[in-house]
Amino acid sequence: MTYCVGILLDDGLVLAADSRTNAGVDQIALTRKLTFFDRDGDRMIGLMSSGNLATTQAVVTQLQQDCDGCDGPTMMSVKTLFDAAQLVGDTLRKVLARDASYVQPYGDPNASFILGGQIAGETHRLFEIYAAGNFVEASDDTPFLQIGETKYGKPILVRMIRHDTNLVDACKCAVLSMDATIRSNLSVAPPIDLLCYRKDSLMPETYRRIEADDDYLISLREGYSAGLGELFRDLPQPPWLAP
Amino acid sequence: MTYCVGILLDDGLVLAADSRTNAGVDQIALTRKLTFFDRDGDRMIGLMSSGNLATTQAVVTQLQQDCDGCDGPTMMSVKTLFDAAQLVGDTLRKVLARDASYVQPYGDPNASFILGGQIAGETHRLFEIYAAGNFVEASDDTPFLQIGETKYGKPILVRMIRHDTNLVDACKCAVLSMDATIRSNLSVAPPIDLLCYRKDSLMPETYRRIEADDDYLISLREGYSAGLGELFRDLPQPPWLAP
Repeated sequence: MTYCVGILLDDGLVLAADSRTNAGVDQIALTRKLTFFDRDGDRMIGLMSSGNLATTQAVVTQLQQDCDGCDGPTMMSVKTLFDAAQLVGDTLRKVLARDASYVQPYGDPNASFILGGQIAGETHRLFEIYAAGNFVEASDDTPFLQIGETKYGKPILVRMIRHDTNLVDACKCAVLSMDATIRSNLSVAPPIDLLCYRKDSLMPETYRRIEADDDYLISLREGYSAGLGELFRDLPQPPWLAP
Repeated sequence: MTYCVGILLDDGLVLAADSRTNAGVDQIALTRKLTFFDRDGDRMIGLMSSGNLATTQAVVTQLQQDCDGCDGPTMMSVKTLFDAAQLVGDTLRKVLARDASYVQPYGDPNASFILGGQIAGETHRLFEIYAAGNFVEASDDTPFLQIGETKYGKPILVRMIRHDTNLVDACKCAVLSMDATIRSNLSVAPPIDLLCYRKDSLMPETYRRIEADDDYLISLREGYSAGLGELFRDLPQPPWLAP
């Protein structure tokens, strides 16, 4: 399994992905789930993937390979992020058309993606591409999108993220959301790949690989745990219970 | 969908269930998912259900009807909670054997249960009965069990519940876990049925139906939201990000 979250803010974007890939509990490995397509001053695109690893690797590798010269549109030539989302969806459909029937006897061949970034000439945008190859776009009302093991990390996002949240708080929230998932589910694990993108910069502001022993991750986790314990103790007791 | 949680503590048990039942988004109703089998001084058993409503109602009604006189064991005659769990599993299997093949063309006929309580002569216990009719028991190491829409409400339980948590804190935590789920998922909704059972009392200590406008629910939710916001702001900023 996997957990990836993308956050669309007035000030920019935050993308975060864990690194665990597994088939059952025996076959566990690390893999990078966040890939960049970027050229300073022209485009900064991040693509995160969840699902069958052979499928997601085939899609990402095909998209990368096509950038080195092909007749059709590529991630480095498309003019809008909408077109980039369509290209990811089309590539996913091609991979599934080739592989799905062979893979199904062994497991689920499907995959999904979060695509975020900015191309010169338009604003920064965030999309989720479904296994069917169709997609939805984030908005002020729906400022975050998740794929993979999404539920454990949702409550903190629901409470803290609005479109006008600043980038620093959104990074903090993304790490907390990831940590809640890591604590609850074995199939999600560090390192956490985190991209912070400031709008109109057209270059990665901060890209950080946060390892399990990262000082900031540990201080955030411990501060949150201790603070939550304190908050919990201070909350009112049920008045209808004898103490 | 549904969300039910059972917590096994040194001091007793907490059972909590939401009340929403739905088939799609059109057909929404309220239903009680927590049923008691109790006789003061002899037994106090709570049964919570999740899954296909026709299946769960058939199982619960059959269990109740059998208490009014049948040859085999009943929820009011079994000597241990282990036997009660087996009886629930057997009854579920009988219902599914009769209905499942007819229901499958329309949807999932399956159901699962949480059974908790105490029968005179043994200690208080907590079980989860799977759709297959088999079951597991909670222990000091695994002090809570969940069925239905379990993931949103798990992080707060993971952080706050241990076997030596007191009953009052466990009730508070159960309500918070329920509220996190209600906020994140449309298919889970109040009223919340909550049972607090003190071990060896062999009678319900507190049974409470918490409505959406309940003063305590609102004060807990608001206190938690405000406190979480404050905690979030006080947590350290990522040192590798410009402020």
